[in-house]
Parts: sequence; structure tokens; C-alpha cells
Amino acid sequence: MVMKPKVVVNGIGAIGKRVAHAVRLQKDMELVGISDVSPTSTLKTNLEPEGPLHGTDLYCSVPDMIEKLRKDMYVKGTLPDLLKSGTVDLVIDCTPEGIGAKNKETYERFGVKSIFQGGEKAGIAEMTFNTFVNYEQAFGKSCVRVPSCNTTSLARTMWAIDNRIGIESVFVSLVRRAVDPWNPSKGPINSIVPDDVPSHHGPDLKTIMPNLNIMTMAVKVPTTLTHVHVVSATLKRDSTTEEVKKVFSETPRITLLKKKDGYTSTSEIIERYRDLGRPRYDMPEVAIWDELVSVIGNKLFWNHAVHSESIVIPENIDCIRAMFGLEKDKWECVKRTNESLGIK
Amino acid sequence: MVMKPKVVVNGIGAIGKRVAHAVRLQKDMELVGISDVSPTSTLKTNLEPEGPLHGTDLYCSVPDMIEKLRKDMYVKGTLPDLLKSGTVDLVIDCTPEGIGAKNKETYERFGVKSIFQGGEKAGIAEMTFNTFVNYEQAFGKSCVRVPSCNTTSLARTMWAIDNRIGIESVFVSLVRRAVDPWNPSKGPINSIVPDDVPSHHGPDLKTIMPNLNIMTMAVKVPTTLTHVHVVSATLKRDSTTEEVKKVFSETPRITLLKKKDGYTSTSEIIERYRDLGRPRYDMPEVAIWDELVSVIGNKLFWNHAVHSESIVIPENIDCIRAMFGLEKDKWECVKRTNESLGIK
Amino acid sequence: MVMKPKVVVNGIGAIGKRVAHAVRLQKDMELVGISDVSPTSTLKTNLEPEGPLHGTDLYCSVPDMIEKLRKDMYVKGTLPDLLKSGTVDLVIDCTPEGIGAKNKETYERFGVKSIFQGGEKAGIAEMTFNTFVNYEQAFGKSCVRVPSCNTTSLARTMWAIDNRIGIESVFVSLVRRAVDPWNPSKGPINSIVPDDVPSHHGPDLKTIMPNLNIMTMAVKVPTTLTHVHVVSATLKRDSTTEEVKKVFSETPRITLLKKKDGYTSTSEIIERYRDLGRPRYDMPEVAIWDELVSVIGNKLFWNHAVHSESIVIPENIDCIRAMFGLEKDKWECVKRTNESLGIK
Amino acid sequence: MVMKPKVVVNGIGAIGKRVAHAVRLQKDMELVGISDVSPTSTLKTNLEPEGPLHGTDLYCSVPDMIEKLRKDMYVKGTLPDLLKSGTVDLVIDCTPEGIGAKNKETYERFGVKSIFQGGEKAGIAEMTFNTFVNYEQAFGKSCVRVPSCNTTSLARTMWAIDNRIGIESVFVSLVRRAVDPWNPSKGPINSIVPDDVPSHHGPDLKTIMPNLNIMTMAVKVPTTLTHVHVVSATLKRDSTTEEVKKVFSETPRITLLKKKDGYTSTSEIIERYRDLGRPRYDMPEVAIWDELVSVIGNKLFWNHAVHSESIVIPENIDCIRAMFGLEKDKWECVKRTNESLGIK
Repeated sequence: MVMKPKVVVNGIGAIGKRVAHAVRLQKDMELVGISDVSPTSTLKTNLEPEGPLHGTDLYCSVPDMIEKLRKDMYVKGTLPDLLKSGTVDLVIDCTPEGIGAKNKETYERFGVKSIFQGGEKAGIAEMTFNTFVNYEQAFGKSCVRVPSCNTTSLARTMWAIDNRIGIESVFVSLVRRAVDPWNPSKGPINSIVPDDVPSHHGPDLKTIMPNLNIMTMAVKVPTTLTHVHVVSATLKRDSTTEEVKKVFSETPRITLLKKKDGYTSTSEIIERYRDLGRPRYDMPEVAIWDELVSVIGNKLFWNHAVHSESIVIPENIDCIRAMFGLEKDKWECVKRTNESLGIK
Repeated sequence: MVMKPKVVVNGIGAIGKRVAHAVRLQKDMELVGISDVSPTSTLKTNLEPEGPLHGTDLYCSVPDMIEKLRKDMYVKGTLPDLLKSGTVDLVIDCTPEGIGAKNKETYERFGVKSIFQGGEKAGIAEMTFNTFVNYEQAFGKSCVRVPSCNTTSLARTMWAIDNRIGIESVFVSLVRRAVDPWNPSKGPINSIVPDDVPSHHGPDLKTIMPNLNIMTMAVKVPTTLTHVHVVSATLKRDSTTEEVKKVFSETPRITLLKKKDGYTSTSEIIERYRDLGRPRYDMPEVAIWDELVSVIGNKLFWNHAVHSESIVIPENIDCIRAMFGLEKDKWECVKRTNESLGIK
Repeated sequence: MVMKPKVVVNGIGAIGKRVAHAVRLQKDMELVGISDVSPTSTLKTNLEPEGPLHGTDLYCSVPDMIEKLRKDMYVKGTLPDLLKSGTVDLVIDCTPEGIGAKNKETYERFGVKSIFQGGEKAGIAEMTFNTFVNYEQAFGKSCVRVPSCNTTSLARTMWAIDNRIGIESVFVSLVRRAVDPWNPSKGPINSIVPDDVPSHHGPDLKTIMPNLNIMTMAVKVPTTLTHVHVVSATLKRDSTTEEVKKVFSETPRITLLKKKDGYTSTSEIIERYRDLGRPRYDMPEVAIWDELVSVIGNKLFWNHAVHSESIVIPENIDCIRAMFGLEKDKWECVKRTNESLGIK
Repeated sequence: MVMKPKVVVNGIGAIGKRVAHAVRLQKDMELVGISDVSPTSTLKTNLEPEGPLHGTDLYCSVPDMIEKLRKDMYVKGTLPDLLKSGTVDLVIDCTPEGIGAKNKETYERFGVKSIFQGGEKAGIAEMTFNTFVNYEQAFGKSCVRVPSCNTTSLARTMWAIDNRIGIESVFVSLVRRAVDPWNPSKGPINSIVPDDVPSHHGPDLKTIMPNLNIMTMAVKVPTTLTHVHVVSATLKRDSTTEEVKKVFSETPRITLLKKKDGYTSTSEIIERYRDLGRPRYDMPEVAIWDELVSVIGNKLFWNHAVHSESIVIPENIDCIRAMFGLEKDKWECVKRTNESLGIK
């Protein structure tokens, strides 16, 4: 019988707090602790009696900072001590960009498996993971990277089309929300900021889909709710709008929403998930505007919205199952993860 | 024994959908229907299997529009027919500003009690209601108005200070969020728009607290999350910062949040309620910044945040209890409403 | 000898006030009047002693509204009476979208030539104009349309590349500023709003460049300063980044700005024109980010910024010269217009 | 005969570039150089042939950085060497907040007078200056501070009312634009951020008007164009709206704009100065909304807009005249400065 892997989430920010809660919702794994360095408002709130992480043991990621953290919160011990104790099977590292790379050595020293997020470079891990694309390759791996929100949304949608119809080449213009909604310091307030060409998203997706001929360009705009991708693809054969919509509608974690039903903008899409009572109005699904899917011969165009805060959560859970061999069938894994998170 | 009043909510927008859900959560009243005219995305979503109003009968507010509405949704009948049937005790009118005034005659014709919202003029009803200030005056009334978000937040806080310390005069500068978060059409994007002087908020509060010497001025700014009020009061006697904080902390539906805990902005405050899993991250509490409460002699200053979408919901529920005599004691009523809505 | 055409500008909004001022700056044409219906702040300001239209005769476009307009301003007469007098050769119609179509009959009745803007449908005029593409076709025409800001920027850049290298096909993702900077009412404040697919820009450009294989998609974002276009083109042959930059740098009304010089965003680009003392910081040039121009084989990518308020002004002036045969050589015309407007 | 003081401006950012240009426009002083450390886009643009500082000698403020700066620009020498040469009478320090304090010793070492801006603490200088309040006290001073935009707007308006009517006490709620329009990095995008209580503006104003009983509170909002102040004053005697408007209209550098003329927001006010052809649309005037000025007995209320980038420029020029005794009469000084800057 497979044992329940014991999981620690290091870094309780936008991604970490959601991953930790998602682990808690699974029956075949166990959240044995969370770890951080500062008594942020979000860390405290998540541990309050009404918070989703209430009752979870808190550790200090950096031993030198434990005394300071203890002034504000109850801290059980340091993360290295916990890892040393041999009771942890996996650390999901959700620390800020670049910090993960420094933590890796610690995880390895104590022989603990690890998952890193998209803020870290692809080279940090044995592979970059997407459930649809390479679930089985993660079986038995020790160190895996789950890519960022934008890359994950592209992996899901590109895989769906490439698998069923075939993509010759694809161009994506990413219109990025500049910061998460809670962040009161970063801008721009009234400016559009283009990224370098190509943006890092195309090359990042190639770490998962090496044969995909993709080019990406990105601009940052003053919104907080979701990214929007504008996609122009050349297919390997002619198709129809109906066929493409069918492919999308049959792919999990993709949802088609209609402008005529009132979903004319990203804010109305988010309101849908507020109304549905999703925790934090999370939308791990890629939301594609139904009427904007357009096929002309072998040319395919669409727009989708990416909820940067939550879209990678299901892939993190799937990744655990793959690494520990908890579920051999990827679609069964997707089904279990989706059900636990309320994704239809 | 008191019967459960049968309630219909007319107008399922930002306020109506919340009021309807809140009525559903009470044990001493019954939601027998909701009513609207257009198949908006928010109406549909609330009625989906995962939506908070699933299973509620939908009526069409305007008989002429029923055929159009039926093209998209299942509609049980028209609102006037429902009211005529004698099975409804109360309509909570949450239709857009000015529409309520036109509906009033219908409600009266069928002898059904009604509650109107702050978008309607004070003269529409027998009284304007705030639980803390005039709960008992609503006993047995047929038509009552619950004022807007800004006025409700001022009624709660001013009543608390006036009741325990005494307010000689008060000036409030309201920094208003321009639209609700879901709205993609209204602005401004990069401008500040001052209201007339005085803004309507001061006179509106006087319909509840006629003896309060208050002046209000308002500007509209490009944000969506909450209003912020900047308050400068002259007290009837000297006080201390500690005394005022004690008053606020002992008053229900007011919460003190600390900048040092990370609540430096309205977006971080909203994130708190996302983390706590509140439906739609609602914050019916007035959120006062702890460190910004300042008393110098008989001068009192503070800032508070007002969640425009949800703050009036508890007062609507209280108002039903008062009008139907379901609860004689106002603090008991507050306690029951708060518990049902998860307000500590 | 060619007579100076006598010009009236009808509609003194964002475009009209700039066109009127630009006509005033030319030596070979004469501004004999401006026309409007409402005493807006911008109309008044432009006619103040320090305003750029000071001393210009004001007419009322709609006879019925003259008395109302006269309450606030000195009005010389009605536009129809002026046209009837036979002293006007051309009306440049800059009235709001759709109004121009209603005005056309009036201009025709009095035998006055007309120029319409991009808000009107292409069918309103004998042709849609862009200096680079079809200057000579406008010789002797009676009614010509100058397309919108986005289309004009695409006409300039696509013509430059197509003429010198050849475009097989092109995809453009337009990231649109939602409103002009002065507008305090329209949004969105925090949302991204996708347009239909295709957006109207591609078809509109085809009225000028019928053989161009172009697809456009657009989203609206909460900024006011400029649009940004994200372009992905397939060339008819391989090229190099250097060749493309050379083409752009040799094309008038296109400017290359470097991120390394501090132009990392649209707001820093606009600041350049504030610093240079351009009236209203206008930037009639298309601004291309130098480092973002990228060629890989026969694939070409770039980003440019479009100042929606001013980019069509030079084309309007060129169009007058073409219609009245004031200048036979298009590049000589471009040179004269550019010099008068301070465009290098 | 008074010699023309030779002036250097150190720090060519938002304020420095405007001050340098303003000095150039005066006949009784001479701009002998500007100084900076980095080849920013704004520095380069101002020195371009069309730029307002073209032809001005550039120095490097920090000797160690001259080689790096010379890679991009022509640099005449270092600022210390220039000061040492004895050819400079005054440095206007417009370096970023806190840097001025470090520069002070250099200016003193070479016996050069200095003006600091509001980003520096009041203690840096012999006095904090406002033309209306304490012009004559600056005669012969060596080191003077011109306070920030917000404080300057308050000094002008409070002085006007206090001098003619008398202010018993005043409360100001400042609604601050978060960053200058060119800045693409700072936010918030969708949040309101309250300052501490009291904000620093009240205490800062007291360095100029020590007897004024003032309290200020501030919030930061996601706009870039202007600050807006919401003022509630208690006068020493009853007054009327007419009297107060008369006082404001008779005070230089204050302008009354009417909502009914279309100035309903800060963006429409800024458009006025774009239309008037002001360089960079600068508005050194305090703009008061005419209809919002309200007097009830001895209570006075108003709103004004503060253009943060340009409001302190005239006071900097006045300050030079006062320090060097170039003009004994303050109103004559105001008149000369205003005329040079196009302020009516």
C-alpha cells in the first residue's frame, strides 16, 4: 500500500497559501507544516480560527529569523530541523523568485523531494511539469518544477489543440496584469510596459513542449485581476470553429464563457467565481471567450483569461501524485484534483 | 407564535443577490422568490447548481418582459401575479436607483410591506433605518429604507462615538471607489472627480441622526475595492485615543485592523477576507485603521474603509426582524444576523 | 496660380481642435471658421487669448442650437448659412462617430468638399486615404475619409515594410488605451475588455491596402496615454533586424526609441514630448521600440505606440493638399506638413 | 548695480528640469549649468536641439561617476570643480529625497548659496520659504528650503484666507496622486493607501505659518495628474461664499475654475493647460473649483487641485530674487515671475 506523503509548503504567499490549502483537501497526502520567515498579514490570517490553514504547524524557514518571527506568532521550530527529523517527504517551495534556488541545497541535504514554482529557472529541477503534457515523466522524480501561470495556461490550451488537430506554429501576445490584487506598491498606474522580444513565456513553454514552434510577446498593463492572452495559431490542417470549441470543451480545466451571457471582460469573469462562492474567487480554469474562437482555414484565433493567483494549484497537486506514484492514470489524477478543488 | 415572513427580493444586482442569500441563511424568515427583468450573467450564475440562490423561484418584475426573459431562463411567473396571490409578506427592492420609486405603488396595491435601498430618496419610506440608531422605531412599519453603504458606515461609527462620548460636530471627506469591481464600463481611469458641496451623505445621515452636526465632501477616485472615509470630529468632552479605540472595539460590525500587521491599504484589507473564505470576500464590517485613530483633547480623527457591496446586508436583515417584530431586542438581533453571516 | 482653399473644421473635440490648429499653421490653405454645437470647456479654452484658435470665427453646426450656444459664446452664424454663402471650399468633419454621416448631405447640397474621420464608415467617402499608400488617388476628389489612429499607424508601418521587403501575412494584437486622458467618465478601471474577432482594424486597413493579408485582434485596457500594437509578420523573403530598422528609420512619421535610453514604457515616451515642448505633448509619429524589432528568417516582430489624439493630424493636412492639387509630389507634401508640425 | 546671480541646478528630474528652464527665462539671473549623475531619457531630451535646456553646460554631480556619464553625453566637468572655480553663486538642489542633505556640505565648503526642495527636512536650511508668507525673511539668506507641492498649495491658500479673513483652525484631507505621470513602476493600481495621522503636510506648513492651527490627513490613490485637497476651515469671523471667492480671485497663482464650464475633474483641468499650450501642460496655479467653495457662517469648505510637477517652480524663482536682493517688493517679484512663466 502507498503511504501518504508528508508535505511541507515553504513560503506562504499568493501561491503557497493556496497550495497548502489544496494539499489539505486531498485524502492521499498530508500537510505536516508550513514555513515562512515574516509574520505577514496573509500568513496570520490563514492561521486564524476561520483561516484555511488553521491548526497547521508553522516553521521558520531560516533559523536565524526564528526569534523575530516568534515575537508575533507561535513557531514550532525551524524548517531545517524539521527536514532533518526525517518526517517530511516533500517540500513545495513557493518562496519569492530566486530564493528557491538557494533553498534547493537544504532540501537535497536532507534527502527530501521538492517542487519548485515558475519563478525559478527551469534548470533548477529534473523537469518542468504539466499534467496534460508529461505527467508520466514525473513518476519517481525527486525535483520537479511547475511553471508559472502564463506558461501553464499555454501548456493546457496548446496541448489540447496540438494533440487533437496539430499546431504548425503559434504566436501569442500576452497582456499581463501588472500585480496581484492585494499589492498596493507596484504599478504602472497609467502606462503600458512592453517586455523584451521574445518574452520568456515561449522559451519556458518549450521546456515542456520542445517541438512547439511558438513565439511570445508581452506587455504589462494596469490591472490586477487576470492576464489575457491573444493567440494566433497556424494549424497542421484546416479546421472549423466548431471543432476547436469541441476540443476546448472536452479538455478539463478549460472553460468556455460567452460574451452574450455577460462575460464581456475579465472583471465580469471574476465576478462569476465570486458568485459561485469559490474560496478567494479562485479560477484555476483557463477561461476562453466562446465567441472569440475563430477558425479560417488552417488559421485559429482565440483570447483567454488566466487567473495568475490560482491557475497552477491543480498542477502542483497532480505533480505530487506523479512524483510519489499515487495515481498512475493522469486523467484519473486530474479528476481527483478537480473534484477536491470544485473545478467542473 | 410569530409566523415566518415570506420574502421576495426584487433586483438581483450587487445588493440584491447578497440580500437574497442572507435571507436564505436566516431561520426566522423565508425567501420565496427573486425577481428581475434581464438574464444577466450574475443572475444566471447565482441560480446555477453551485450558486448561492440555486433552487429559488425566479419571477419577472415587469409582466411585459417575461417572454424575453423566458428565452434564457426558467421563470415561474410575474412579480405582480405573485404579490397578488397573497403569499408574500415583504419585498426587498434592490432595483437600480430610481426604479424603486416606480415599484412602490405595486407593492402598496397588493398590501405587501417593502424595504428600499439607499439609491431611493428618503421620502419613499416611512423612515430610514439603522439598527444601532433606531431599531425599535421600525417595529410594525410597512415601508422602510435602508440607506447606502457610505451612510450606513457613518451611522454605525458616529452612533458609537456619539452615544458613549458625544459629538459636537464632525467633518467627513469621502474618497469613493468609482464603481464596483465587476463593472468594465465606468471610469475614471486617471482622474479625480469631486462631488458637490455638501455631498449627499451628510444630509442622508441626518435622516437617521437628525441632531448630528455633520458636513461631508466627496471625491471619486479610480479604484473598485472600497470607499475610504477621512473623519475629523469635535467631541463634547476631551477623550483619549485609548477610550475611542475601546468604544470602537466594543461596537459590533466595526473591526480595527493594524497597519503594523500588514493592513496598510484597502487591497490588503480585502485580501484578509479572501483568505478567511468569506463568500465573495464580503466585508460587512466597517474597517478602521487602528493606528490612525487619534485623539488630541476633544478632537478625534480616524480613517475607515467601507465595502460598498456588502456593508448594508446585515442592516437589511435586521430591518426585516424589526418590521415583523421577530426580535424585540436590538443587540440580540445584531447577534443573530452577525452569526448567520460569519461576522465576529 | 492655385488659390488657397478655405477650410472650416466642424466639431472641435480631440481631433477637430488639432486639425483646426494645424490648418492655421499652413501657408497654402486658410482656416475660415470652426463649428460646433455646445460650449464645452475645450472649445472655450481654444478660443481664449492664449488658445491656439484665438480669433477664429465660430459657427453653430445645427441652426436650432444657435441661441443656446450664443448664451455662452460669440457665434458668427450657422454653418449651413456659411456654406451657402459660397466662401468655403472644404469642411473637415470631426464630429462624433456617426454624426458625420448625417452631415454629409448638407456639405453636398452646397457643393462643398469634405473630409471625414475614421469614426465614420468607409462607405461615406469616395476613398479612404493614407499619404504613403494612395496620395495621388485623392487628387480632385470631393469626399475623402482619413481613417482612425490605429489604422493610420498600421498603414504607415505596413506600407513601409511591404514596399521595401514585402509582407506575406501579418497578425496584430492591439492593446488599446480605453479613453483619451481628459475623459473622467469611461472605464474600465480594473478590467481587460476584448473586442470581437477580427477587430475592425484589419478590415479598415484593407480599404487602403486591399491586398494586405492582415488579421487584427484587440483588447481595451485601463490606460489613457497611447495604444500599443504587438505585430507578428511573415515577410515575402528573409530579412534582418538591421534591414527592418533601416526601413523604419528612413520612413517619415516613424520614430525609433530605445529602451536603454529610458523609453521602457508609454508614459516615458509621452514625457519625451512633454519635455520637447510639443503642443499638448502631441506625438503624431508612430513610436517603435528599437530593441523590440526582431527578425528571425522571414518572421518579423515589433511593438509600437500610437498617440490616439494626434497621429491622424498630418494625414488630414496632406489630404487637403491632395484633394486641391496643392502639391503633386507626396514626399514634398509630407515634408511641408511635418515641418509645420515640428515632426523631424 | 546688482549683478546677475549665476545659478546651477543639481538634479534634472521632474522639478529640476522645470526650475532650470524657469531660471533661463528670467532676465536678472543666469543659468550657468546643470548637473546630474545618470544619462536618463529626460536629461537627454531636455538637452536635445528642440529641448528647453539645449546649450546648457552639463556637469557631473559626483566626480566618481563622470566617466560613466561621459559614455553617453558631453560632460563639461564635475560639479565640485565648477563650484570651486568661484563662478557659481547659487545651487538649486533638486536631487531625490535625502540626497540634498548629503550635498549640503559641498555647497557650504565652496561658499555657494543653496536652495533645497521639500523632499529635504526643514532643518536643512535657515528657513522654509513661501513668497506670500515670508518673502522678506529670505533677504540675504544663504540656505533656504522651498517646501513640497502640497505644502506650497496650502501656504498660498491658507495665507490668502488667514490674511484677509482669519483662520481659527483648519482640517485638510489630501487625496494624493500616487506618482508622476511618467513613472511606470510605482502603484497602487487598485488600492487606497492612507498615510499616518497627522500626515507630514500640516507640520511642514507650520514651518512657514507657525501660528496656523492645522491638521492634515492623507490618502494615496491610483492617479497621476494632480493631488486634490479637501479643506474644512473655521474662520475667525463669519464670512460669505462671495467674500471668499473674491479673496481667492484677487490672490495671484490661484485660479477658480467652474464645473459648469466643464471642469468637473482633474483630467479636464489638465486638458485646459494642454489646450493653452503651456510647456508640458504645467499648471503652477492652485486650481480651486468655483462652485465647491462654500461658506456657512464661520465655516469654510473648498476643494483644490495641485499639479505636483510644476507648482513649486514660481516660488523657487521668487526665492532666488529674495536671497540675492534682486527685488525688494514681493508683489513685484510675483508679477515678474508670473509673466515669465505665462501665469495670468
